[in-house]
Amino acid sequence: MSDRKTARDSFTEMTELVLPQHGNVIGTAFGGTVLSWIDICGAIAAQRHCNRVAVTAAIDEVSFLAPIRVGDVVVLTARLNAAFRTSMEVHVEVKVEEALTAHRRRCVDAFMTFVAIDESGSTCPVPTLVAESADDERRAAEAAERRAARLKKR
Amino acid sequence: MSDRKTARDSFTEMTELVLPQHGNVIGTAFGGTVLSWIDICGAIAAQRHCNRVAVTAAIDEVSFLAPIRVGDVVVLTARLNAAFRTSMEVHVEVKVEEALTAHRRRCVDAFMTFVAIDESGSTCPVPTLVAESADDERRAAEAAERRAARLKKR
Amino acid sequence: MSDRKTARDSFTEMTELVLPQHGNVIGTAFGGTVLSWIDICGAIAAQRHCNRVAVTAAIDEVSFLAPIRVGDVVVLTARLNAAFRTSMEVHVEVKVEEALTAHRRRCVDAFMTFVAIDESGSTCPVPTLVAESADDERRAAEAAERRAARLKKR
Amino acid sequence: MSDRKTARDSFTEMTELVLPQHGNVIGTAFGGTVLSWIDICGAIAAQRHCNRVAVTAAIDEVSFLAPIRVGDVVVLTARLNAAFRTSMEVHVEVKVEEALTAHRRRCVDAFMTFVAIDESGSTCPVPTLVAESADDERRAAEAAERRAARLKKR
Amino acid sequence: MSDRKTARDSFTEMTELVLPQHGNVIGTAFGGTVLSWIDICGAIAAQRHCNRVAVTAAIDEVSFLAPIRVGDVVVLTARLNAAFRTSMEVHVEVKVEEALTAHRRRCVDAFMTFVAIDESGSTCPVPTLVAESADDERRAAEAAERRAARLKKR
Amino acid sequence: MSDRKTARDSFTEMTELVLPQHGNVIGTAFGGTVLSWIDICGAIAAQRHCNRVAVTAAIDEVSFLAPIRVGDVVVLTARLNAAFRTSMEVHVEVKVEEALTAHRRRCVDAFMTFVAIDESGSTCPVPTLVAESADDERRAAEAAERRAARLKKR
Repeated sequence: MSDRKTARDSFTEMTELVLPQHGNVIGTAFGGTVLSWIDICGAIAAQRHCNRVAVTAAIDEVSFLAPIRVGDVVVLTARLNAAFRTSMEVHVEVKVEEALTAHRRRCVDAFMTFVAIDESGSTCPVPTLVAESADDERRAAEAAERRAARLKKR
Repeated sequence: MSDRKTARDSFTEMTELVLPQHGNVIGTAFGGTVLSWIDICGAIAAQRHCNRVAVTAAIDEVSFLAPIRVGDVVVLTARLNAAFRTSMEVHVEVKVEEALTAHRRRCVDAFMTFVAIDESGSTCPVPTLVAESADDERRAAEAAERRAARLKKR
Repeated sequence: MSDRKTARDSFTEMTELVLPQHGNVIGTAFGGTVLSWIDICGAIAAQRHCNRVAVTAAIDEVSFLAPIRVGDVVVLTARLNAAFRTSMEVHVEVKVEEALTAHRRRCVDAFMTFVAIDESGSTCPVPTLVAESADDERRAAEAAERRAARLKKR
Repeated sequence: MSDRKTARDSFTEMTELVLPQHGNVIGTAFGGTVLSWIDICGAIAAQRHCNRVAVTAAIDEVSFLAPIRVGDVVVLTARLNAAFRTSMEVHVEVKVEEALTAHRRRCVDAFMTFVAIDESGSTCPVPTLVAESADDERRAAEAAERRAARLKKR
Repeated sequence: MSDRKTARDSFTEMTELVLPQHGNVIGTAFGGTVLSWIDICGAIAAQRHCNRVAVTAAIDEVSFLAPIRVGDVVVLTARLNAAFRTSMEVHVEVKVEEALTAHRRRCVDAFMTFVAIDESGSTCPVPTLVAESADDERRAAEAAERRAARLKKR
Repeated sequence: MSDRKTARDSFTEMTELVLPQHGNVIGTAFGGTVLSWIDICGAIAAQRHCNRVAVTAAIDEVSFLAPIRVGDVVVLTARLNAAFRTSMEVHVEVKVEEALTAHRRRCVDAFMTFVAIDESGSTCPVPTLVAESADDERRAAEAAERRAARLKKR
């Protein structure tokens, strides 16, 4: 297990079919259901980076840009933006795909922070995230800004 | 059904017992489970204000300040901060209560925005929220600021 | 942790939104779903009294006085009536609130008995329940009668 | 579809494996989980008698005589005791079977009342229950007594 | 616990009510839901034979001969066909019963293979299955053929 | 919506985190849970091909080649092998990824058949699957053989 990894190493794609049990009385998916999927998709990416259990520390502002209906397919992708000492920022993107037309719309963008937990239940260091492109560098820089803003708020 | 309501009219308290099915392999509750509960608690408060189905439009930054373990009791309270034309901001506060000591810790604070939906599936106006105190007025003013910041970001 | 507590110390309020997954083919909540919520609400109150895991020993006769529909909000409250040596009687009251009118109807009254379980899995003594009013005393007396009747039946 | 049926026509047997998701932190099945299974098993028997949707009206006192552990097998049987005009009493018996020893113990006896619902959502008449033995007659007589006691209590 | 058993010793009957949460957008049960029930029913029969935890090793070809609708009752029966050294073949038969007419149709036939697992997590020998009839012998012979075909395929 | 599609148009990748609620008492995922995921992953691919609701008609023999543990990540991919008049064969491949080592093993290969259902609930024609390579042609030919064998068996 390497102590240096790229964003490609932990990239995660998750597909969910929206079933009646995920929806409310008017047949649209509950916000909470989608937030659960975002959390699991982000956690898998974080765990793939640190090879540890990763627990949710924070979620940045999330807006639902499009409704999700029972019967739709939801496609989530998670990508590591930055690795700090014991925490990681993951970008989760949610697209909704209409079953009958295959039309895909962007639905949610979320920035989540996860913390790596070792066998004794304490936080522990994570591998370095190696930037492979200018885009990787920009993402890491923006994640560091969001982190600074979040720490300042407390 | 009145077109003017106070924050007390829609105040919601929800209590959940954290079961093994809510937790991960190290016995702490999934972030996604807690986010689902926050969403439902906030939605009930919003629906109590507008007497309509309310769907999640946005969640402001959420930090998990304390771990939640399987066996703990989670107490959520939701309170309307502001009612705009068709949307409402709800403050959801999560406390975690250790089963054996009854010790309660603040765990999450979340500001959520819900939108009222009518019979035809369109957004529709919500009742006015009447401030009863200086605290009510401060909450409404801060919610309006958060809303302006969120709209500006898009 | 005190060995003397009042009914206020363990009072529990739980709110649930009735989702499609809780209902049957005609859109009313399953009896079993509501019984699960009653059990969890009662268990939380019992655990708050004894600061132990509390397991269900018995439920007295339960009648469903009003139908509960998908989309309704269900409000459960649990209150300790009596603490015996290792068991506790809890009164759980269920009200159903129509989403569109906010009209609340009494739906179920249940008297449940829980037993405190220690680390080794055996039953163990619970704190004394201190009566603070004539109503508290009447509740404890009626609980003792129900217990006597139940033990006699076996 | 006949308007006269025997208890054998609606007899129902249900078997459940107790999974981790059905249990609490000490690895025993939640009372609420077992109550849900009892409700579904009873509802199937009632629906088999009336060929309608049957909704839960009441449950008589239920005692848990033996703990149910994760990994155990639970065997439920439901048998119609009596058919009144629009309601039916069903006896549900729960046995728990230890996985490693196959040892079965009686765990719960429950008397439940279900009501038949027609297409318009109203209660509707159910077929007559024909007694085939002295035991059938005794069960029907005892069910009628329990019903009278329950109606008197209200 | 005997080391010789008959098929009657482990025969298992399971009854399930198809709820909205088991169905898709057109109100028919998900294939995956039915496969889960088949797996659990078969596992209970296998565990009853070996008095161990039994895990799924294989499922032979499964065809869905009739649709299963929300509101229907599903009746599953599992019967041991053969016991090999550490594995067992179980025949699971699924019938669907229309709620309103009580009409039962054969829906699925599945041949499943389970393996017994001991305390250390390794496979372990299972009791001999004693044939009581020519039908029992035919079933065991056909199971042995299916096993040989499956092993050859790898 | 085109009436000619390639296998790439409907390719589906699904990632699942194995939670305690998916496992049995020895901490390995239930066969039934994995079969549910296979069914949903295959159904999404089939629905992406036909832009209709697709229901499960059959699953060919499935072997579990490696155990799946709670905490592991499961990666499913589904790919259309053949489109017949109203049915489609989908190949679902399951890999299990150990959380701590990122080591991936092949776990299950399944060939599933789905049928397209129109608005009236009847089966309906699906688009042609266009082969883009020799591999595509081989897959379609083998699927046609499996279909012929299955139809012959009935």
